[in-house]
Amino acid sequence: MGEEVILLDFWTSVYGMRVRIALAEKGVEYEYKEQDLFNKGSVLLQMNPVHKKIPVLIHNGKPICESTVIVEYIDEVWNHKPPLLPSDPYQRAQVRFWVDYIDKNIYAEGKKIWAFKGEKLEAVTKEFIESLKTLEEELGDKPYFGGDNIGFVDVVLIPFYCWFYTYETLGKFSVEGECPKIIEWAKRCMQKESVSKSLRDEKKVLQFILELRKKMGVVD
Amino acid sequence: MGEEVILLDFWTSVYGMRVRIALAEKGVEYEYKEQDLFNKGSVLLQMNPVHKKIPVLIHNGKPICESTVIVEYIDEVWNHKPPLLPSDPYQRAQVRFWVDYIDKNIYAEGKKIWAFKGEKLEAVTKEFIESLKTLEEELGDKPYFGGDNIGFVDVVLIPFYCWFYTYETLGKFSVEGECPKIIEWAKRCMQKESVSKSLRDEKKVLQFILELRKKMGVVD
Repeated sequence: MGEEVILLDFWTSVYGMRVRIALAEKGVEYEYKEQDLFNKGSVLLQMNPVHKKIPVLIHNGKPICESTVIVEYIDEVWNHKPPLLPSDPYQRAQVRFWVDYIDKNIYAEGKKIWAFKGEKLEAVTKEFIESLKTLEEELGDKPYFGGDNIGFVDVVLIPFYCWFYTYETLGKFSVEGECPKIIEWAKRCMQKESVSKSLRDEKKVLQFILELRKKMGVVD
Repeated sequence: MGEEVILLDFWTSVYGMRVRIALAEKGVEYEYKEQDLFNKGSVLLQMNPVHKKIPVLIHNGKPICESTVIVEYIDEVWNHKPPLLPSDPYQRAQVRFWVDYIDKNIYAEGKKIWAFKGEKLEAVTKEFIESLKTLEEELGDKPYFGGDNIGFVDVVLIPFYCWFYTYETLGKFSVEGECPKIIEWAKRCMQKESVSKSLRDEKKVLQFILELRKKMGVVD
């Protein structure tokens, strides 16, 4: 069937990367449309009038917004490929718990690392490391959070890997020093083309953020 | 089968009320265990070591945490009763979008209404009203967000109804004046025993919050 799949996205967005990975895992072809977030276009405003944010997946003309909602949608629609969520309700609940944890902790704290400076930056860096350690413990000795294959939690967490360099530079710490197993897991994920092609260059991400901090007046 | 269902909860919690409603909608019998949040017990700490928060549903000894995760779990496990989520992937995505919206807006802003005072309180009250208006628009002329029956969005939003009196008293506004259709919808929901038995007295909620504000030093 003639499916039309469009992704409104922005290159540094971890939320956008989640959708790129999920689409790649399912082998879905799509048109990528980079958005200007400082001067939002009419398509974005029309497709996501509530939040006015990327990513937006437009499937046969109908928009789906919010990254984790989109990933679950992709998993449910393109269900001929290996699922990203398990089928057992209890396991599904655990997966959704950790997805929620990543957004409430890793995302929120990561954002503060680049938006803060001084003592506040120091404090939130500590919180970020603690959250990452909690995730490392949850990973345990599994190759992926999803078990033998990447699943919903992996898709949601791995985009931060190309932001680690930014967090490390600003927060003055080493993820590998604090959470070596997370780095091993990230390298394992990066061996998959679905992941490596969806993430962006860590040095370019840092450059982007340093410029954004200047614009926002956050300079040490 | 001999199912054991236990709910760790706290009487004023909108998150807890969601779980109570979902269990009632599914006709699941359970043991309600009120928790002391100012002196957390060992069962709560053991069952939700990551967040240490209620509600926690313990199903045959296994804990499920985070209210929206629990409601989806209940819907998937007790699937002989009418579903709270639709089966169509696009409709499911829309439902999950609004559930996320309620947590990011109504919950977050509602919390600030009781934790703030002065200008900050005024500003967040305006945001709260705008968010409620957005939801009113989404409801449109449907009897429930779920259509002809209450669904996931209704279960997630209706607990705030018994907090409206608190928000109105502190924020000095009338929900009915701003969003009359939301009040009509709330009264419709309250006709269901699953809802009315799960919510708590609005005056007692206000009393609880006024005392909490005093303890926290938030007094006008």
